[in-house]
Amino acid sequence: MLIRPASPEDAAAIWSIMEPVVRAGETYALDRDMSRDDALAYWLAPDKEAFVAEQDGAVLGTYVLRPNQAGGGRHVANCAYMTSAHAMGRGVARRMCEHSLDHARALGYKAMQFNFVVGTNERAVRLWQSLGFEIVGRLPGAFAHPAHGDVDALVMFRQL
Amino acid sequence: MLIRPASPEDAAAIWSIMEPVVRAGETYALDRDMSRDDALAYWLAPDKEAFVAEQDGAVLGTYVLRPNQAGGGRHVANCAYMTSAHAMGRGVARRMCEHSLDHARALGYKAMQFNFVVGTNERAVRLWQSLGFEIVGRLPGAFAHPAHGDVDALVMFRQL
Repeated sequence: MLIRPASPEDAAAIWSIMEPVVRAGETYALDRDMSRDDALAYWLAPDKEAFVAEQDGAVLGTYVLRPNQAGGGRHVANCAYMTSAHAMGRGVARRMCEHSLDHARALGYKAMQFNFVVGTNERAVRLWQSLGFEIVGRLPGAFAHPAHGDVDALVMFRQL
Repeated sequence: MLIRPASPEDAAAIWSIMEPVVRAGETYALDRDMSRDDALAYWLAPDKEAFVAEQDGAVLGTYVLRPNQAGGGRHVANCAYMTSAHAMGRGVARRMCEHSLDHARALGYKAMQFNFVVGTNERAVRLWQSLGFEIVGRLPGAFAHPAHGDVDALVMFRQL
């Protein structure tokens, strides 16, 4: 699996990964009716660095990295990861997260924070924990899950 | 004290409040060299509702309210408050927070979250606690304080 910076030519592949995630509204706090253009503008915003995970010429996942805060918060990175619905269970998210941790360290970040991990997304919570993240905050009922109602969201954090 | 929506004519007063806060870099995760235009564009961004607290024709404070997240997170409000250096200790922040809680309730929000309360800002932490907020998260060393080095930032939350 090759993880490389995203290029403008990856837009269609990135949207094909984002679209089902956005429309489902179960794991990301994004408007479910978000347009393709808005979604790509959000993911590929100038304050973010975007990557894709590629295997045999197919884009299986994408992630973005940015400073989580400005000013005195710039030494903490924030990332978001999405895996193609066709590539679940193949370790794509784990590989992207490992890549992002290395890349963040190389850029001089001292820590990484996830601001809003939906509590019912147990697969993600376990994966991030296995990669060294701890739950440092719990936001009660902060996420309106389309099937489960208001569920907690978690803040996860690790030093680099 | 009158709390009213901010208008474009308040820009100079808002910047006079923001400038020392931004330059000090002790309580907000904003770049300390942020320009006037960038600061006002941030504070008066289209996704925020901005208010000012006024007494005898003088603007003593300003606050902004917005949804903390999109999509499934839109029922949780986020606010930020700044008080004029000349008006500290007069209850301006408390009055603005009370106003914001009422306003958020009126808009249908179910909760309010502060994402990044600098731990050394004890005055603010105590004030928010006295207004019903609880510390629901602690971000270890997430804020580079110009005098104290890396200090914790707190996530605070209350139902409405």
